[in-house]
Amino acid sequence: MKETIGSVTIPEFITESGVRMKDLVQVYSAYGERRDSNVVLVCHALTGSHRLAGKTLTGQPDPWWDTLVGEGKALDTNKYFIVCFNNLASPYGSTSPLSLNPETGKPWGMGFPILSPRDVARAQKLALEKLGISKIDTVVGGSLGGMIACEIALSYPDDVQKCAMVAAPDKLYPQAIAFNAVQRQSITSDPDWRNGNYEKGAGPVKGLAAARMLAMITYRSEQSFSGRYMREMASGSATDWSGQFQVESYLHHHGEELVRRFDANCYLYLTRMMDLHDVGAGRGGIPAAWSRFAGKKLLAVGISSDMLFANWQVEEAARVASENGVTSKYDEIESDNGHDAFLIDFDQLDEMMRGFLHVRDC
Amino acid sequence: MKETIGSVTIPEFITESGVRMKDLVQVYSAYGERRDSNVVLVCHALTGSHRLAGKTLTGQPDPWWDTLVGEGKALDTNKYFIVCFNNLASPYGSTSPLSLNPETGKPWGMGFPILSPRDVARAQKLALEKLGISKIDTVVGGSLGGMIACEIALSYPDDVQKCAMVAAPDKLYPQAIAFNAVQRQSITSDPDWRNGNYEKGAGPVKGLAAARMLAMITYRSEQSFSGRYMREMASGSATDWSGQFQVESYLHHHGEELVRRFDANCYLYLTRMMDLHDVGAGRGGIPAAWSRFAGKKLLAVGISSDMLFANWQVEEAARVASENGVTSKYDEIESDNGHDAFLIDFDQLDEMMRGFLHVRDC
Repeated sequence: MKETIGSVTIPEFITESGVRMKDLVQVYSAYGERRDSNVVLVCHALTGSHRLAGKTLTGQPDPWWDTLVGEGKALDTNKYFIVCFNNLASPYGSTSPLSLNPETGKPWGMGFPILSPRDVARAQKLALEKLGISKIDTVVGGSLGGMIACEIALSYPDDVQKCAMVAAPDKLYPQAIAFNAVQRQSITSDPDWRNGNYEKGAGPVKGLAAARMLAMITYRSEQSFSGRYMREMASGSATDWSGQFQVESYLHHHGEELVRRFDANCYLYLTRMMDLHDVGAGRGGIPAAWSRFAGKKLLAVGISSDMLFANWQVEEAARVASENGVTSKYDEIESDNGHDAFLIDFDQLDEMMRGFLHVRDC
Repeated sequence: MKETIGSVTIPEFITESGVRMKDLVQVYSAYGERRDSNVVLVCHALTGSHRLAGKTLTGQPDPWWDTLVGEGKALDTNKYFIVCFNNLASPYGSTSPLSLNPETGKPWGMGFPILSPRDVARAQKLALEKLGISKIDTVVGGSLGGMIACEIALSYPDDVQKCAMVAAPDKLYPQAIAFNAVQRQSITSDPDWRNGNYEKGAGPVKGLAAARMLAMITYRSEQSFSGRYMREMASGSATDWSGQFQVESYLHHHGEELVRRFDANCYLYLTRMMDLHDVGAGRGGIPAAWSRFAGKKLLAVGISSDMLFANWQVEEAARVASENGVTSKYDEIESDNGHDAFLIDFDQLDEMMRGFLHVRDC
């Protein structure tokens, strides 16, 4: 399987909130060969990257969806030309708070504009055009990636045939906004955050780890924790402060792991990006937004145990889409793995994606 | 209605983990007149206190259950003698990390022993005996109070006739342990925590506020947040860091409110106390634990939208109790208010408690 890693620069971009940005860089990976009508655009989640599949490469993040992307897989690189951009505001190479603002020569830091999923969608569409691609067969994404995918479909309905939105609602509900707020509070309360002015590689490591610990609870479920850990101790006794339950140890591990590979300011911007998700905003409401995609196809996939974006939120999106002319199908991953099931239960998603990608009518 | 506020001192107490504590103080409030077989012991939740009802008093915490406790109310002070102790490790007057250790003359701080709900249950039973009370008609509690109530029933089955356990499981499941772990991480990551050696009134206020913000999410529900706030802004625009969604503003308000009235070290100990809840520990498992209460009565009340201690956990406790000889009834508060419904939907709880307290057979 051929993987091409590259980048595209957009000379000028004006955000929804009116901020003008110069020389916007977007890193991408592309897989397979381009032919007529075979472009699949994949959008990645909060701490994911452009690297869907391929070898482990020095200086590049590890692939996150190689269970679904590859030769003969559901997103078949023998059939499709598959592109994934690193989202703006992510630390994996695209323009982010870590980047130098070309107009000041200094890092953007907390001067970076707050971007919405719609901003990111538009930037990715512009970048695709720079690559000579105007038509997208299918846009696919999970979690934040599902929100961006949905925005690409609704912003460019003439250029997109199908949209697969996995474990994502059509607007962020307040409990998810609340979880994001607490995570940001952990980061900004850490004195090492210094209002975002920390040295590269330093920064609010404790705050970022605590944010990730909370996020990990919302990515899993009571059932998955009970099945794996229940009340088992990892070490020591719970009547001593040095003792840790298995589930505590699991959270600490994931907190420490993220700190090694992610940036705190980027985390602030990406969680706020998620908060801004509302396909109805500026479009006369959600039904009117979905009517833009009338005649096209939507696959909305919920997860039975998802506590971050509950299955009913995804099903609701599919229902409203259907009521507004979209050929819409709701499907559900039956899993105890919680929100992260879209990264784990690939066998179920494999079947759903094959069905959706390969048929012309669903 | 007569309220008596007092305290009881136990000269020596040895914790489950083997720590000997001298001069253990427990503050209490008592309501109504004592007669034969009319003692109702109420156990309070994490940040609650001994003050169930009564007037606002200087230097005393505000009452938290006056919707249920009073003349003619479900916990009728004309009929019952109702006692509530301030839990050990709580900052409202009972021995806690804030207290002086009589053996060193210095505050316990983080040298305080980790107590289990069973320790607190035993201490409250000993304190009741100091008040001349050996028999309890009904022990009642919600949330952490429900866990302590359950431990009183199972530790002293000969002295307790009935137990009403509201919004509490018979063991803490790992997701709740995980939420507690993240809350403690917020506190201990705050440099003002200083390993617990902060000045009274100072301390990790940011960390404690962040812990409470997270706790508040688990005390409510998506339905309650959606019903009240949905995606409304409290101030400014979400594309500016000064802007706040209503739900963010709500969390910040509650974070700041708790900091004014609570202590961070106590919060650490009380959340760990909750983690230790497992009625089966040291009793040969949960079925064997419930069999101790065989022939007695249990009312287990779940809340339909509880995300902290899900209704199925409470129902499971009632089922296992029933299978092991307890006359057990499961009832449910139908509410979108989440875990806190036991403090809000008092009309439903009123009816359940009246039924359970006033009949001899359920």
